[in-house]
Amino acid sequence: MKLAFVGGTGPEGLGLAMRLANAGHEIAIGSRSRERGEEGAARIREAVPSATVSGGENAEVVGDADVVFLTFPYSGQHPTLEQLGGRLDGKIVCDVVAPLEFQQGIGAVALNVPAGSAAQEAAAQLPNARVVSAFQNMSAEKLMELDHPIDCDVLVCGKDAEAKQVIIGLANQIDGVRGVDAGGLSQSRYVEMMTSLLINLNRKHKTQTSIKIVGI
Amino acid sequence: MKLAFVGGTGPEGLGLAMRLANAGHEIAIGSRSRERGEEGAARIREAVPSATVSGGENAEVVGDADVVFLTFPYSGQHPTLEQLGGRLDGKIVCDVVAPLEFQQGIGAVALNVPAGSAAQEAAAQLPNARVVSAFQNMSAEKLMELDHPIDCDVLVCGKDAEAKQVIIGLANQIDGVRGVDAGGLSQSRYVEMMTSLLINLNRKHKTQTSIKIVGI
Repeated sequence: MKLAFVGGTGPEGLGLAMRLANAGHEIAIGSRSRERGEEGAARIREAVPSATVSGGENAEVVGDADVVFLTFPYSGQHPTLEQLGGRLDGKIVCDVVAPLEFQQGIGAVALNVPAGSAAQEAAAQLPNARVVSAFQNMSAEKLMELDHPIDCDVLVCGKDAEAKQVIIGLANQIDGVRGVDAGGLSQSRYVEMMTSLLINLNRKHKTQTSIKIVGI
Repeated sequence: MKLAFVGGTGPEGLGLAMRLANAGHEIAIGSRSRERGEEGAARIREAVPSATVSGGENAEVVGDADVVFLTFPYSGQHPTLEQLGGRLDGKIVCDVVAPLEFQQGIGAVALNVPAGSAAQEAAAQLPNARVVSAFQNMSAEKLMELDHPIDCDVLVCGKDAEAKQVIIGLANQIDGVRGVDAGGLSQSRYVEMMTSLLINLNRKHKTQTSIKIVGI
Protein backbone atom coordinates (compact mmCIF):
# COMPACT_ATOMS: atom_id res chain seq x y z
CA MET A 1 0.00 0.00 0.00
CA LYS A 2 0.95 3.63 -0.37
CA LEU A 3 1.14 5.22 3.06
CA ALA A 4 1.52 8.96 3.56
CA PHE A 5 2.58 10.54 6.86
CA VAL A 6 1.35 14.10 7.30
CA GLY A 7 3.68 15.78 9.76
CA GLY A 8 5.78 12.68 9.36
CA THR A 9 9.07 14.21 10.41
CA GLY A 10 8.49 13.92 14.16
CA PRO A 11 9.72 10.85 16.03
CA GLU A 12 6.29 9.12 16.13
CA GLY A 13 5.72 9.53 12.39
CA LEU A 14 9.24 8.48 11.48
CA GLY A 15 9.13 5.47 13.78
CA LEU A 16 5.79 4.25 12.44
CA ALA A 17 6.90 4.89 8.85
CA MET A 18 10.11 2.89 9.44
CA ARG A 19 8.15 -0.07 10.74
CA LEU A 20 5.68 0.00 7.86
CA ALA A 21 8.46 0.53 5.29
CA ASN A 22 10.05 -2.53 6.81
CA ALA A 23 6.79 -4.40 6.17
CA GLY A 24 7.13 -3.58 2.48
CA HIS A 25 4.80 -0.60 2.05
CA GLU A 26 5.53 2.45 -0.06
CA ILE A 27 6.09 5.46 2.19
CA ALA A 28 5.71 9.21 1.64
CA ILE A 29 6.85 11.59 4.38
CA GLY A 30 5.05 14.93 4.42
CA SER A 31 6.01 18.16 6.15
CA ARG A 32 5.14 21.82 5.92
CA SER A 33 8.40 22.27 4.04
CA ARG A 34 9.45 20.10 1.13
CA GLU A 35 13.06 20.03 2.40
CA ARG A 36 12.09 18.63 5.79
CA GLY A 37 9.85 16.05 4.11
CA GLU A 38 12.79 14.95 1.98
CA GLU A 39 15.05 14.84 5.05
CA GLY A 40 12.50 12.60 6.76
CA ALA A 41 12.42 10.33 3.71
CA ALA A 42 16.22 10.10 3.83
CA ARG A 43 16.04 8.96 7.46
CA ILE A 44 13.61 6.18 6.51
CA ARG A 45 15.89 5.12 3.66
CA GLU A 46 18.84 5.00 6.02
CA ALA A 47 16.95 2.83 8.53
CA VAL A 48 15.32 0.61 5.91
CA PRO A 49 17.60 0.52 2.84
CA SER A 50 15.09 -1.55 0.85
CA ALA A 51 12.32 1.04 1.36
CA THR A 52 10.43 2.77 -1.43
CA VAL A 53 10.12 6.21 0.12
CA SER A 54 9.67 9.80 -0.97
CA GLY A 55 9.26 13.11 0.84
CA GLY A 56 7.55 16.38 0.12
CA GLU A 57 4.98 18.89 1.27
CA ASN A 58 1.99 17.54 3.14
CA ALA A 59 -0.43 18.44 0.37
CA GLU A 60 1.71 16.61 -2.19
CA VAL A 61 2.29 13.36 -0.36
CA VAL A 62 -1.37 12.63 0.39
CA GLY A 63 -2.30 12.73 -3.32
CA ASP A 64 -2.11 9.06 -4.25
CA ALA A 65 -1.90 7.55 -0.76
CA ASP A 66 -4.17 4.66 0.23
CA VAL A 67 -3.82 5.55 3.91
CA VAL A 68 -2.90 8.93 5.37
CA PHE A 69 -1.44 8.97 8.89
CA LEU A 70 -1.77 12.13 10.95
CA THR A 71 1.41 12.24 13.04
CA PHE A 72 1.72 15.79 14.29
CA PRO A 73 1.16 17.35 17.72
CA TYR A 74 -2.48 18.13 18.52
CA SER A 75 -1.92 21.87 18.08
CA GLY A 76 -1.24 21.23 14.40
CA GLN A 77 -4.31 19.15 13.70
CA HIS A 78 -6.95 21.79 12.99
CA PRO A 79 -4.83 24.04 10.75
CA THR A 80 -3.29 21.12 8.85
CA LEU A 81 -6.64 19.47 8.14
CA GLU A 82 -8.07 22.85 7.18
CA GLN A 83 -5.33 23.15 4.63
CA LEU A 84 -5.58 19.60 3.26
CA GLY A 85 -9.40 19.59 3.29
CA GLY A 86 -10.86 17.86 0.22
CA ARG A 87 -7.61 16.11 -0.65
CA LEU A 88 -8.43 13.57 2.04
CA ASP A 89 -11.94 12.83 0.73
CA GLY A 90 -12.59 9.12 0.43
CA LYS A 91 -9.24 8.19 1.95
CA ILE A 92 -8.52 6.19 5.05
CA VAL A 93 -7.16 8.74 7.52
CA CYS A 94 -5.50 7.28 10.62
CA ASP A 95 -5.26 9.82 13.42
CA VAL A 96 -2.29 9.10 15.67
CA VAL A 97 -2.68 12.33 17.66
CA ALA A 98 -2.91 12.30 21.48
CA PRO A 99 -3.85 15.76 22.78
CA LEU A 100 -1.61 16.54 25.75
CA GLU A 101 0.64 19.14 27.24
CA PHE A 102 3.49 18.95 29.72
CA GLN A 103 3.04 20.54 33.14
CA GLN A 104 5.83 20.98 35.62
CA GLY A 105 5.64 18.60 38.55
CA ILE A 106 3.05 16.36 36.88
CA GLY A 107 4.37 15.42 33.45
CA ALA A 108 2.04 14.74 30.56
CA VAL A 109 -1.51 16.01 31.07
CA ALA A 110 -4.23 15.00 28.62
CA LEU A 111 -6.17 17.92 27.19
CA ASN A 112 -9.95 17.96 27.24
CA VAL A 113 -11.07 18.14 23.63
CA PRO A 114 -14.58 19.56 23.14
CA ALA A 115 -15.43 16.91 20.50
CA GLY A 116 -14.34 14.16 22.94
CA SER A 117 -11.13 13.19 21.20
CA ALA A 118 -8.73 14.34 18.52
CA ALA A 119 -10.13 11.61 16.28
CA GLN A 120 -13.72 12.82 16.65
CA GLU A 121 -12.57 16.34 15.96
CA ALA A 122 -10.78 15.17 12.79
CA ALA A 123 -13.88 13.25 11.70
CA ALA A 124 -16.03 16.35 12.14
CA GLN A 125 -13.57 18.37 10.09
CA LEU A 126 -13.26 15.72 7.36
CA PRO A 127 -16.83 14.48 6.79
CA ASN A 128 -15.85 12.66 3.58
CA ALA A 129 -12.76 10.89 4.88
CA ARG A 130 -12.73 7.46 6.53
CA VAL A 131 -11.28 8.49 9.88
CA VAL A 132 -9.84 5.86 12.19
CA SER A 133 -7.56 6.35 15.19
CA ALA A 134 -4.68 4.13 16.28
CA PHE A 135 -1.03 3.93 17.35
CA GLN A 136 -1.24 6.86 19.84
CA ASN A 137 0.24 4.74 22.63
CA MET A 138 3.32 3.45 20.86
CA SER A 139 6.70 4.68 21.99
CA ALA A 140 8.52 6.46 19.15
CA GLU A 141 11.78 5.25 20.64
CA LYS A 142 10.69 1.62 20.49
CA LEU A 143 9.26 2.04 17.01
CA MET A 144 12.68 3.12 15.78
CA GLU A 145 14.44 0.09 17.25
CA LEU A 146 13.66 -2.00 14.20
CA ASP A 147 15.51 -5.09 15.44
CA HIS A 148 13.24 -5.42 18.48
CA PRO A 149 9.64 -6.61 18.42
CA ILE A 150 7.19 -4.38 20.33
CA ASP A 151 5.05 -6.35 22.73
CA CYS A 152 1.79 -4.38 22.75
CA ASP A 153 -1.75 -4.01 21.52
CA VAL A 154 -2.81 -1.20 19.21
CA LEU A 155 -6.39 -0.14 19.89
CA VAL A 156 -8.11 0.86 16.67
CA CYS A 157 -11.24 3.05 16.83
CA GLY A 158 -13.55 4.10 14.03
CA LYS A 159 -16.97 3.92 12.45
CA ASP A 160 -15.86 2.52 9.07
CA ALA A 161 -15.40 -1.22 9.66
CA GLU A 162 -13.42 -1.80 6.48
CA ALA A 163 -11.05 1.10 7.18
CA LYS A 164 -10.54 -0.26 10.68
CA GLN A 165 -9.64 -3.68 9.30
CA VAL A 166 -7.02 -2.09 7.03
CA ILE A 167 -5.39 -0.38 10.03
CA ILE A 168 -5.63 -3.51 12.18
CA GLY A 169 -3.90 -5.36 9.35
CA LEU A 170 -1.10 -2.78 9.25
CA ALA A 171 -0.68 -2.95 13.03
CA ASN A 172 -0.41 -6.74 12.84
CA GLN A 173 2.47 -6.39 10.37
CA ILE A 174 4.63 -4.74 13.04
CA ASP A 175 6.60 -7.43 14.84
CA GLY A 176 5.03 -8.21 18.24
CA VAL A 177 2.03 -5.90 17.77
CA ARG A 178 -1.61 -6.94 17.74
CA GLY A 179 -4.32 -4.67 16.35
CA VAL A 180 -7.54 -4.74 18.37
CA ASP A 181 -10.91 -3.39 17.23
CA ALA A 182 -11.75 -1.01 20.07
CA GLY A 183 -15.11 0.15 18.76
CA GLY A 184 -16.30 3.53 17.53
CA LEU A 185 -14.52 6.86 17.52
CA SER A 186 -16.09 7.66 20.90
CA GLN A 187 -13.60 5.19 22.40
CA SER A 188 -10.63 7.10 21.04
CA ARG A 189 -10.84 9.54 23.95
CA TYR A 190 -9.78 6.80 26.36
CA VAL A 191 -7.04 5.51 24.09
CA GLU A 192 -5.67 9.02 23.51
CA MET A 193 -5.68 9.71 27.26
CA MET A 194 -3.78 6.51 27.95
CA THR A 195 -0.81 8.08 26.19
CA SER A 196 -0.36 10.56 29.04
CA LEU A 197 -0.51 7.77 31.61
CA LEU A 198 2.10 5.73 29.74
CA ILE A 199 4.43 8.73 29.30
CA ASN A 200 4.24 9.37 33.04
CA LEU A 201 4.78 5.69 33.86
CA ASN A 202 7.84 5.75 31.58
CA ARG A 203 9.32 8.67 33.54
CA LYS A 204 8.48 7.25 36.92
CA HIS A 205 9.78 3.75 36.24
CA LYS A 206 12.57 4.83 33.85
CA THR A 207 11.41 2.45 31.16
CA GLN A 208 9.31 2.28 28.01
CA THR A 209 5.83 0.98 28.71
CA SER A 210 3.05 -0.22 26.47
CA ILE A 211 -0.32 -1.78 27.13
CA LYS A 212 -1.97 -5.10 26.41
CA ILE A 213 -5.60 -6.03 26.70
CA VAL A 214 -6.01 -9.41 28.36
CA GLY A 215 -9.07 -11.50 27.54
CA ILE A 216 -9.49 -10.77 23.81
CA MET B 1 -5.49 -6.23 58.27
CA LYS B 2 -8.99 -4.97 58.93
CA LEU B 3 -10.55 -3.91 55.65
CA ALA B 4 -13.85 -2.04 55.48
CA PHE B 5 -15.90 -1.69 52.30
CA VAL B 6 -18.10 1.38 52.23
CA GLY B 7 -20.94 0.68 49.85
CA GLY B 8 -19.62 -2.85 49.85
CA THR B 9 -22.83 -4.56 48.82
CA GLY B 10 -22.44 -3.91 45.08
CA PRO B 11 -20.73 -6.50 42.86
CA GLU B 12 -17.35 -4.69 42.76
CA GLY B 13 -17.16 -4.32 46.53
CA LEU B 14 -18.30 -7.87 47.20
CA GLY B 15 -15.89 -9.30 44.64
CA LEU B 16 -12.92 -7.42 46.01
CA ALA B 17 -13.90 -8.28 49.59
CA MET B 18 -14.15 -11.97 48.68
CA ARG B 19 -10.66 -11.96 47.20
CA LEU B 20 -9.16 -10.17 50.19
CA ALA B 21 -11.07 -12.35 52.66
CA ASN B 22 -9.55 -15.27 50.79
CA ALA B 23 -6.13 -13.74 51.41
CA GLY B 24 -6.83 -13.88 55.15
CA HIS B 25 -7.87 -10.32 55.94
CA GLU B 26 -10.68 -9.36 58.29
CA ILE B 27 -13.56 -7.89 56.31
CA ALA B 28 -16.37 -5.48 57.21
CA ILE B 29 -19.10 -4.79 54.66
CA GLY B 30 -20.79 -1.42 55.01
CA SER B 31 -24.06 -0.19 53.55
CA ARG B 32 -26.52 2.61 54.15
CA SER B 33 -28.66 0.03 55.93
CA ARG B 34 -27.38 -2.33 58.57
CA GLU B 35 -29.47 -5.18 57.13
CA ARG B 36 -27.95 -4.90 53.68
CA GLY B 37 -24.46 -4.70 55.20
CA GLU B 38 -25.16 -7.92 57.09
CA GLU B 39 -26.53 -9.55 53.95
CA GLY B 40 -23.30 -8.61 52.14
CA ALA B 41 -21.26 -10.12 54.96
CA ALA B 42 -23.28 -13.33 54.65
CA ARG B 43 -22.43 -13.51 50.95
CA ILE B 44 -18.71 -13.21 51.74
CA ARG B 45 -19.01 -15.93 54.40
CA GLU B 46 -20.74 -18.18 51.89
CA ALA B 47 -18.01 -17.67 49.27
CA VAL B 48 -15.13 -17.85 51.77
CA PRO B 49 -16.21 -20.04 54.71
CA SER B 50 -12.99 -19.34 56.61
CA ALA B 51 -13.52 -15.58 56.45
CA THR B 52 -13.70 -13.29 59.47
CA VAL B 53 -16.41 -10.93 58.28
CA SER B 54 -19.01 -8.60 59.69
CA GLY B 55 -21.55 -6.23 58.23
CA GLY B 56 -23.21 -3.01 59.29
CA GLU B 57 -23.82 0.62 58.50
CA ASN B 58 -21.08 2.46 56.64
CA ALA B 59 -20.29 4.71 59.61
CA GLU B 60 -19.91 1.67 61.90
CA VAL B 61 -17.68 -0.50 59.74
CA VAL B 62 -15.01 2.13 59.12
CA GLY B 63 -14.38 2.62 62.83
CA ASP B 64 -11.44 0.27 63.42
CA ALA B 65 -10.50 -0.44 59.81
CA ASP B 66 -6.90 -0.15 58.66
CA VAL B 67 -7.99 0.40 55.07
CA VAL B 68 -11.36 1.71 53.88
CA PHE B 69 -12.40 0.86 50.32
CA LEU B 70 -14.88 3.13 48.56
CA THR B 71 -16.91 0.81 46.35
CA PHE B 72 -20.06 2.70 45.40
CA PRO B 73 -21.16 4.35 42.17
CA TYR B 74 -19.74 7.83 41.61
CA SER B 75 -23.08 9.50 42.37
CA GLY B 76 -22.76 8.23 45.94
CA GLN B 77 -19.27 9.48 46.59
CA HIS B 78 -19.86 13.06 47.66
CA PRO B 79 -22.80 12.43 50.02
CA THR B 80 -21.21 9.33 51.55
CA LEU B 81 -17.89 11.04 52.25
CA GLU B 82 -19.79 14.06 53.60
CA GLN B 83 -21.52 11.78 56.04
CA LEU B 84 -18.38 9.83 57.09
CA GLY B 85 -16.16 12.90 57.21
CA GLY B 86 -13.79 12.86 60.17
CA ARG B 87 -14.21 9.13 60.75
CA LEU B 88 -11.78 8.57 57.87
CA ASP B 89 -9.08 10.90 59.28
CA GLY B 90 -5.65 9.27 59.26
CA LYS B 91 -6.93 6.15 57.51
CA ILE B 92 -5.86 4.71 54.19
CA VAL B 93 -8.85 5.27 51.93
CA CYS B 94 -8.76 3.36 48.63
CA ASP B 95 -11.11 4.89 46.06
CA VAL B 96 -12.36 2.25 43.61
CA VAL B 97 -14.86 4.61 41.95
CA ALA B 98 -14.88 5.12 38.16
CA PRO B 99 -17.21 7.99 37.23
CA LEU B 100 -19.28 6.89 34.25
CA GLU B 101 -22.78 6.69 32.89
CA PHE B 102 -24.39 4.48 30.27
CA GLN B 103 -25.59 6.07 27.04
CA GLN B 104 -27.67 4.28 24.47
CA GLY B 105 -25.75 3.36 21.34
CA ILE B 106 -22.37 4.02 22.93
CA GLY B 107 -22.20 2.09 26.18
CA ALA B 108 -20.15 3.35 29.11
CA VAL B 109 -19.17 7.00 28.90
CA ALA B 110 -16.65 8.41 31.37
CA LEU B 111 -17.84 11.52 33.15
CA ASN B 112 -15.69 14.64 33.28
CA VAL B 113 -15.01 15.32 36.94
CA PRO B 114 -14.11 18.94 37.72
CA ALA B 115 -11.35 17.87 40.15
CA GLY B 116 -9.85 15.65 37.42
CA SER B 117 -10.83 12.31 38.92
CA ALA B 118 -13.03 10.76 41.56
CA ALA B 119 -9.89 10.13 43.60
CA GLN B 120 -8.81 13.78 43.52
CA GLU B 121 -12.31 14.81 44.48
CA ALA B 122 -12.23 12.39 47.43
CA ALA B 123 -8.84 13.71 48.50
CA ALA B 124 -10.14 17.29 48.44
CA GLN B 125 -13.11 16.24 50.55
CA LEU B 126 -10.99 14.21 53.01
CA PRO B 127 -7.88 16.36 53.61
CA ASN B 128 -6.83 14.25 56.60
CA ALA B 129 -7.23 10.82 55.00
CA ARG B 130 -4.54 8.99 53.06
CA VAL B 131 -6.37 8.70 49.74
CA VAL B 132 -5.18 6.22 47.13
CA SER B 133 -7.02 4.92 44.09
CA ALA B 134 -6.94 1.41 42.66
CA PHE B 135 -8.95 -1.59 41.40
CA GLN B 136 -11.33 0.49 39.20
CA ASN B 137 -10.59 -1.67 36.17
CA MET B 138 -11.24 -5.08 37.67
CA SER B 139 -14.24 -7.04 36.50
CA ALA B 140 -16.61 -7.77 39.40
CA GLU B 141 -17.57 -10.98 37.67
CA LYS B 142 -13.98 -12.17 37.53
CA LEU B 143 -13.33 -11.09 41.12
CA MET B 144 -16.13 -13.36 42.28
CA GLU B 145 -14.74 -16.42 40.46
CA LEU B 146 -12.44 -17.24 43.34
CA ASP B 147 -11.05 -20.40 41.73
CA HIS B 148 -9.61 -18.47 38.78
CA PRO B 149 -6.56 -16.21 38.89
CA ILE B 150 -7.06 -12.78 37.29
CA ASP B 151 -4.34 -11.93 34.82
CA CYS B 152 -4.09 -8.15 35.14
CA ASP B 153 -2.27 -5.15 36.55
CA VAL B 154 -3.82 -2.90 39.16
CA LEU B 155 -2.66 0.68 38.75
CA VAL B 156 -2.32 2.37 42.13
CA CYS B 157 -2.30 6.19 42.31
CA GLY B 158 -1.70 8.40 45.32
CA LYS B 159 0.50 10.95 47.01
CA ASP B 160 1.17 8.94 50.20
CA ALA B 161 3.92 6.48 49.24
CA GLU B 162 3.39 4.25 52.27
CA ALA B 163 -0.37 4.03 51.73
CA LYS B 164 0.29 3.15 48.09
CA GLN B 165 2.61 0.34 49.12
CA VAL B 166 -0.10 -1.08 51.39
CA ILE B 167 -2.57 -1.16 48.50
CA ILE B 168 0.02 -2.56 46.07
CA GLY B 169 0.66 -5.30 48.65
CA LEU B 170 -3.05 -6.11 48.86
CA ALA B 171 -3.34 -6.20 45.04
CA ASN B 172 -0.40 -8.62 44.87
CA GLN B 173 -2.23 -10.98 47.24
CA ILE B 174 -4.94 -11.56 44.63
CA ASP B 175 -3.97 -14.53 42.50
CA GLY B 176 -2.61 -13.39 39.12
CA VAL B 177 -2.73 -9.68 39.94
CA ARG B 178 0.22 -7.31 40.03
CA GLY B 179 0.00 -3.94 41.76
CA VAL B 180 1.83 -1.15 39.90
CA ASP B 181 2.71 2.27 41.31
CA ALA B 182 1.12 4.57 38.74
CA GLY B 183 2.20 7.86 40.32
CA GLY B 184 0.20 10.65 41.90
CA LEU B 185 -3.57 11.09 42.13
CA SER B 186 -3.45 13.15 38.93
CA GLN B 187 -2.95 9.86 37.08
CA SER B 188 -6.16 8.40 38.48
CA ARG B 189 -8.16 10.23 35.82
CA TYR B 190 -6.66 8.01 33.12
CA VAL B 191 -7.09 4.84 35.14
CA GLU B 192 -10.72 5.67 35.97
CA MET B 193 -11.44 6.43 32.30
CA MET B 194 -9.98 3.10 31.23
CA THR B 195 -12.88 1.43 32.99
CA SER B 196 -15.29 2.75 30.36
CA LEU B 197 -13.07 1.51 27.55
CA LEU B 198 -12.82 -1.95 29.10
CA ILE B 199 -16.59 -2.17 29.70
CA ASN B 200 -17.18 -1.31 26.04
CA LEU B 201 -14.54 -3.80 24.87
CA ASN B 202 -16.25 -6.46 26.98
CA ARG B 203 -19.56 -5.81 25.25
CA LYS B 204 -18.08 -5.64 21.78
CA HIS B 205 -15.95 -8.76 22.08
CA LYS B 206 -18.33 -10.64 24.43
CA THR B 207 -15.59 -11.30 26.95
CA GLN B 208 -14.08 -9.96 30.15
CA THR B 209 -11.05 -7.80 29.51
CA SER B 210 -8.35 -6.44 31.75
CA ILE B 211 -5.17 -4.53 31.12
CA LYS B 212 -1.50 -5.14 31.61
CA ILE B 213 1.34 -2.69 31.41
CA VAL B 214 4.26 -4.16 29.47
CA GLY B 215 7.77 -2.93 30.23
CA ILE B 216 7.62 -2.53 34.03
